[in-house]
Amino acid sequence: MRVEDVRVLVTGGSGFIASGCLPLLVSAGADVHAVSRGAAAATEGVTWHRADLLDARDRQALMEHVGPTHLLHAAWYSTPGRFWDSVSNVKWLTASLDLAELFGRAGGRRALGVGSCAEYDPCSGVCREDATPALPANLYGRSKLAAGQGLLAVGAAFGYATAWARVFAPYGPGEPDEKLIPYAIRTWLAGGIVRCGDLQRVRDFVYIEDVARALVRLLLLDASGVFNVCTGVPVTLAEVLYRIDRALGGGGRMEEQVREVRGDDPLILVGDPSCMATVSEWQPRIDIVEGIERTVDYWRKVDATDHSRPKTKSSL
Amino acid sequence: MRVEDVRVLVTGGSGFIASGCLPLLVSAGADVHAVSRGAAAATEGVTWHRADLLDARDRQALMEHVGPTHLLHAAWYSTPGRFWDSVSNVKWLTASLDLAELFGRAGGRRALGVGSCAEYDPCSGVCREDATPALPANLYGRSKLAAGQGLLAVGAAFGYATAWARVFAPYGPGEPDEKLIPYAIRTWLAGGIVRCGDLQRVRDFVYIEDVARALVRLLLLDASGVFNVCTGVPVTLAEVLYRIDRALGGGGRMEEQVREVRGDDPLILVGDPSCMATVSEWQPRIDIVEGIERTVDYWRKVDATDHSRPKTKSSL
Repeated sequence: MRVEDVRVLVTGGSGFIASGCLPLLVSAGADVHAVSRGAAAATEGVTWHRADLLDARDRQALMEHVGPTHLLHAAWYSTPGRFWDSVSNVKWLTASLDLAELFGRAGGRRALGVGSCAEYDPCSGVCREDATPALPANLYGRSKLAAGQGLLAVGAAFGYATAWARVFAPYGPGEPDEKLIPYAIRTWLAGGIVRCGDLQRVRDFVYIEDVARALVRLLLLDASGVFNVCTGVPVTLAEVLYRIDRALGGGGRMEEQVREVRGDDPLILVGDPSCMATVSEWQPRIDIVEGIERTVDYWRKVDATDHSRPKTKSSL
Repeated sequence: MRVEDVRVLVTGGSGFIASGCLPLLVSAGADVHAVSRGAAAATEGVTWHRADLLDARDRQALMEHVGPTHLLHAAWYSTPGRFWDSVSNVKWLTASLDLAELFGRAGGRRALGVGSCAEYDPCSGVCREDATPALPANLYGRSKLAAGQGLLAVGAAFGYATAWARVFAPYGPGEPDEKLIPYAIRTWLAGGIVRCGDLQRVRDFVYIEDVARALVRLLLLDASGVFNVCTGVPVTLAEVLYRIDRALGGGGRMEEQVREVRGDDPLILVGDPSCMATVSEWQPRIDIVEGIERTVDYWRKVDATDHSRPKTKSSL
């Protein structure tokens, strides 16, 4: 299928991950439709639709109206700190399966859903799609796992190809500012003290532009199955703070706190990117040093005009 | 919770697996309600309800009417040979999640769903709940996996405990007679020639009474999570036919056929029963020799009065 014939519906279009995909889809030449529950920022070349995807009638009306050939389903409940155990996960699970059915009925050809590293057994170290047990430790991970397997099943039943991307730790400009990296940058920019614990946790940070490139590439391929979107590079939270401090010129004050460790918050969560590389030739381009520098630059500019106070809590 | 206070709703109540559970639940002292789409055989102590669980209104009316404390969800599409790739799998997936939600809203306390060894990576050999990747090779396995993870998620959201039983190869009296064991027994009883291929496939056969005891025990426990219901004993299909032939007195004629091997039909599919044994002290009691003898006795009696011809095709 030529990309000029692709009409893609992007859900969660105003969110951190999907909004990074929109300009890439537009430049690729696709007819891009995005859906958001509230008002969305104008994005060149994107047709916006307002709908509540948790409402069955809204879902049906939207799908019939747009009639997409491709679906990039990124919408989910994502309020930082709360999303791990919220009942909203289950609402998004059932809404996602229904959306996949409506997409099949509307003649959809290719779907990509956004999953999470939280679907893996958090004690497994380096996670591989075909070797690491899917053993999520919280409601978010369980619901994402069920949604991914459900989407693959619905796609197979309707005869369209489905991929499910397990995204590891995405970061970069636009990340919600309760998250660790924006919290630390904004706090230090304002001269405050960064307070956080568990600094030896190891994560697989993927820069948002790399995530967006990976998702768009997966969407436009025909490969079915589950794919890690990750770098394979382990980085501790302590190193992340060190990189931020360096990018800001040094001297940032920090207080390490002993915090209640969540049982589902693993020490090490790193992915194996080789499957994705084999299928799509995608490679991450921005390493943690450059990614943090770019993110610091972004917040310098934002905070020069936006004088809202930095958040006082952070979560991964 | 005392078993006298248990009101259990059994779905798929007239099917092979669930019908074995009904008398055990009645003797345990529970208030037993079973649902079937068509007419069901009277079972002492069981209140039958007629409903189509694929119909949303039927599901809701049934759940409100019965108001169960416990749910044993065994209903699924299971037509031999067809169930692997049928779109009905997806219908049962979404219906199952909705049923779990309705159960939560009705104040349900404890759910048990019936899953399958087809949820595992079929190349994994001996399958463990916490170590073997969930990597189903067909629509049935994917849909069951999604249903299991979805039920666990819905249960967690509503605050009730959920277990998901991955049943390996159940067999015994009452198994649909297109399946290999009934097919071979009935064909030889009628003096015919058994035709089958791929006799070196290894399976984990569990006698239906052992399966029923395991499910009832899991249902009445409070353990959440995924549990194999299996023996851990590898048996080849060739050995099964040999045991049947012995139980029938020997001399059965057989033609081994080279058949198209399905890619999702693994050479070895055996489970590790230790997790189930630890949690519930359940152990299988009937080994393959005794199980086959009992099944042969059952068909001798049935075929003495029922002169329908044996099926000419078999599938696992």
